[in-house]
Amino acid sequence: MQRHFHDELAALKQTLLAMGGLVEDQIQLVMRALVERDDAQAREVIARDKEVNTYENEIDEKCVELLALHQPAAGDLRFITTALKIVTDLERIGDQAVNIAQRTLELNQEPQLKPYIDLPRMAERAQAMVKGSLDAFVAGDTALARRVRDEDSEVDALNHQIFRELLTFMTADPTTIPRAIRLILIARFLERVADHATNVAEMVVYMVESRMLRHTAP
Amino acid sequence: MQRHFHDELAALKQTLLAMGGLVEDQIQLVMRALVERDDAQAREVIARDKEVNTYENEIDEKCVELLALHQPAAGDLRFITTALKIVTDLERIGDQAVNIAQRTLELNQEPQLKPYIDLPRMAERAQAMVKGSLDAFVAGDTALARRVRDEDSEVDALNHQIFRELLTFMTADPTTIPRAIRLILIARFLERVADHATNVAEMVVYMVESRMLRHTAP
Repeated sequence: MQRHFHDELAALKQTLLAMGGLVEDQIQLVMRALVERDDAQAREVIARDKEVNTYENEIDEKCVELLALHQPAAGDLRFITTALKIVTDLERIGDQAVNIAQRTLELNQEPQLKPYIDLPRMAERAQAMVKGSLDAFVAGDTALARRVRDEDSEVDALNHQIFRELLTFMTADPTTIPRAIRLILIARFLERVADHATNVAEMVVYMVESRMLRHTAP
Repeated sequence: MQRHFHDELAALKQTLLAMGGLVEDQIQLVMRALVERDDAQAREVIARDKEVNTYENEIDEKCVELLALHQPAAGDLRFITTALKIVTDLERIGDQAVNIAQRTLELNQEPQLKPYIDLPRMAERAQAMVKGSLDAFVAGDTALARRVRDEDSEVDALNHQIFRELLTFMTADPTTIPRAIRLILIARFLERVADHATNVAEMVVYMVESRMLRHTAP
């Protein structure tokens, strides 16, 4: 039974990593759709969001099942309750990719305002944070989780830089406003991806330290 | 023991409702700060966010403890795992109030762009959705949860209306752009409050229906 539980837990970690991989893929694909002005790829991101949601339900069910059928000890219990929370963040990262895809389809109907350099850079950082936060979760690695959390300020800085640049465009030429606002929104969606990764990283620190607290409690 | 568990569960529901009440208060206070251009109230919202976070930790701990010490049956187990997720949404609704407070402090440094009519209306709707979604959760009321979910489109419509109006301001007079963008962001923060309430409502439907599925399973 105990062996069986640990297999189940290992499978849960694999499923979480697979969902994380899909969500990272979604960000990568949507940024390609934006840069290449490719409607088909943007629509693919929107269509694939169903798979993200399916993963969420599957992981939720698995967590509830593990709690119902086994009586996990403190550390495993924390892992499962944290997984229940993290899966929600992953699903919402997926939603951000969909948001970006929708703005991309709108932007593709008008001439390109400017070459995109900082947005893909911001997306890469945010994506790396998603990966780092999930790796930290699965390994219970608080040092990695803290590094991910610290990276959030770089993404915020890029967001502000993009905002200021687009403000200049809008002020100089009001006809650019609708396009500039869509790009500002895309930058904010990427910032939210980074925020979700930061939330995951903070939950990992909390999970590991509560576990330690529990372990050292009298 | 069983009686004790049900007392604990009732207390958890009360704490969740109290946290929901605080978060609703935060939205109300920050909208007053915006409309009355009152820095002190905006700063109070920012300061009180600590209380929201304290509630989150308290509820998380309580849920983990209930799972660890009792072996809740299917329905109660679903309630507790859903509570773990919902508390994250409540905390992030609190974060939106802080986001609005920060934009309010910035807006207060410049002359008011226009009287605020739609934003307070949007806030009221969003706040009612938060209350409705939590009431639905505590009562396991899927009809109420579905009504809350349906209200989301009204908040979205208000958001688009505010966006279009501010776009007109910006196009007519580029000096209004920084203020208009802050107001657009505030509308989006309120939209996110409504999104979180919608998420809670959807989790309630999922929770109750999984419970029913579980109850009717052979």
